[in-house]
Amino acid sequence: MSDTARIAMVDELGKIGNASSLHGSGRRARKVVEEAREAIARAIDATPGEIVLTGSGTEANNLAIKGLYWKRVQEDPANNRIISSSIEHHAVMDPIQWLVDHEGARVTWVSVNDRAQLNVDELVDEIERDPKVALVTVMFANNEVGTLQPITRIIEVAHKYGIPVHTDAVQAFGKVPLSFENLDIDALTISGHKIGGPLGIGALIVKKDLKLTPVLHGGGQERDIRSGTLDTPAIRALGVAAQEAHDHLSDRAVRMSALRADLTARVLAEVPDSRSNGDTDTLPGIAHFTFAGAEGDALLLLLDAQGIESSTGSACSAGVPRPSHVLVAMGMSEPEARASLRFSLGFNSTSADIDALVSVIGGVVERARRAGQVSKR
Amino acid sequence: MSDTARIAMVDELGKIGNASSLHGSGRRARKVVEEAREAIARAIDATPGEIVLTGSGTEANNLAIKGLYWKRVQEDPANNRIISSSIEHHAVMDPIQWLVDHEGARVTWVSVNDRAQLNVDELVDEIERDPKVALVTVMFANNEVGTLQPITRIIEVAHKYGIPVHTDAVQAFGKVPLSFENLDIDALTISGHKIGGPLGIGALIVKKDLKLTPVLHGGGQERDIRSGTLDTPAIRALGVAAQEAHDHLSDRAVRMSALRADLTARVLAEVPDSRSNGDTDTLPGIAHFTFAGAEGDALLLLLDAQGIESSTGSACSAGVPRPSHVLVAMGMSEPEARASLRFSLGFNSTSADIDALVSVIGGVVERARRAGQVSKR
Repeated sequence: MSDTARIAMVDELGKIGNASSLHGSGRRARKVVEEAREAIARAIDATPGEIVLTGSGTEANNLAIKGLYWKRVQEDPANNRIISSSIEHHAVMDPIQWLVDHEGARVTWVSVNDRAQLNVDELVDEIERDPKVALVTVMFANNEVGTLQPITRIIEVAHKYGIPVHTDAVQAFGKVPLSFENLDIDALTISGHKIGGPLGIGALIVKKDLKLTPVLHGGGQERDIRSGTLDTPAIRALGVAAQEAHDHLSDRAVRMSALRADLTARVLAEVPDSRSNGDTDTLPGIAHFTFAGAEGDALLLLLDAQGIESSTGSACSAGVPRPSHVLVAMGMSEPEARASLRFSLGFNSTSADIDALVSVIGGVVERARRAGQVSKR
Repeated sequence: MSDTARIAMVDELGKIGNASSLHGSGRRARKVVEEAREAIARAIDATPGEIVLTGSGTEANNLAIKGLYWKRVQEDPANNRIISSSIEHHAVMDPIQWLVDHEGARVTWVSVNDRAQLNVDELVDEIERDPKVALVTVMFANNEVGTLQPITRIIEVAHKYGIPVHTDAVQAFGKVPLSFENLDIDALTISGHKIGGPLGIGALIVKKDLKLTPVLHGGGQERDIRSGTLDTPAIRALGVAAQEAHDHLSDRAVRMSALRADLTARVLAEVPDSRSNGDTDTLPGIAHFTFAGAEGDALLLLLDAQGIESSTGSACSAGVPRPSHVLVAMGMSEPEARASLRFSLGFNSTSADIDALVSVIGGVVERARRAGQVSKR
């Protein structure tokens, strides 16, 4: 968490009041919530009335996908097809898959190229072939390799057929310029802890006239779209973090891009048989590599022992590690995907962090490669 | 929030780590989460594996009701009936009503007597008439008038027909003795901020072998029942608050009951034409009155101006105040219901708080009654 967001949250934890109640303490809490809502709206270039606060980015994605699907199918039962990409986060893939398995939805996962960019021509073909589509949902930027998606084109194509578009912008918000209004998108997901805000808070930004079915029913908070007592301390901290991310967007992006360029060049120079993955049009904070012949999980553990955190993107299902679906969708072989590793830079990363990584990466990869050869004997 | 829970949360906000990730910081966060889970389990007399952490009590109720409904209907489409009570919280009523409107569920709202206690004979008749029931959900104690429900009998009757039972224990947990294991109930909802823990956290306690369909899909946290990054600071604070509520259950209950008895006797003596509502078998912290001829909303505002918080339980829909559905279900006329007011005692309430209320209540009710007469002319 950023210091200012944490300080705001700690202050608010010492106060009381239910933002939905009528008393003095409730009115104070309501004011805190509405000020935070305004800050979030400014940061994403939306109106305060378009911000629907949720308990997480995952919840916001579930709300967008199920909520839009149910509403569209109610309008016309034939609108039961969802179009998405093959590189979505599980918080998008899994709600869709549930709608398919449980509610009779149809789904089309549009492929990506070897730089993890959606094949827009395929999307166009799919929509033209059968425009009875409930929604299109494509992430703003991929969380594993950072590639920005051609979201403007996607929106243009979908809107031509009156199809609403949602984007999971959890990774992108606060990292790249993002205007809800200029995008003319229907719904967009953000999350607190990815921008220096707290865990347990997120939001779905929803066009004012867009109808969607709630996922959580109850007290009718958030214009009846999302029920549950408002979490004033987390909301206030999210407002602070959003404001901060917005104010520092370009200097942070410039700094992180420079650090990443340095990191990438030095890692590639340090480690033989290594390559970096992704696109030039990418998030500033993600560096992604394949170290042929080394197991990603072994690399992760060896680096962790040196105090360096990384991620393989692999999912462990019933004790059997599976390679990242994103890397497979990019056309990597399974061994290549399993030899891949992501480093994330935050706005508080320093060149000393890069130095620390570069000083150990060569030895770590060498050790992991030797271990892989031993275990194959 | 309790001081100890707040201090734990503030400490945790200064730390990092995703409880689902493999690095050192992730392992530390995972340990914090699991220790909190154990504390919650001890407090509710369940096993740690039965605790499914959610973002709120509302979410836990939605998960229990929709999750059980979907699973039961999947097993047998005829099991599409939900039995509940006429005095549930909106976080139970509204998910049920949505299942009726949207998913073809049938519902039976069992009536209560004039003390807000469920008519068990009616419940028995309803189940015997047609035992194809997805679930029975009845709150452990009513949130407006405090009446404890005959939950043991309800569970006994439902289980005779193999029907799972859920209870919304948000109001009761930490206030009255509650053993998940001894109750032999299938699912039970608790919430953080009602026991001195933080907002934005709750849990559904679920029998280990009970299957239910998730409401939020994604990363597969919480045994694949509830996805979303775990909110370690809030979870740690919930663990502390749960432990504390458990350790102080009887001394707090004794103190609050004594304060409430004092409050009730003195308010009734102070205000002519007043009566208290509810049952002898009740939560220790709720005092509920009807002040005939006074508008509850006027009382609330006048008391708020004196620094005293109360609640009418009324819902404001499109600017038109409607009387509490709980009071109407108890057989009150609409004017009676609208002349009613709840006071909640917390574990940190004092006899000075009671004195403050008693010293103003007579004048406040008199003023509200006069205002009511004026507005009728």
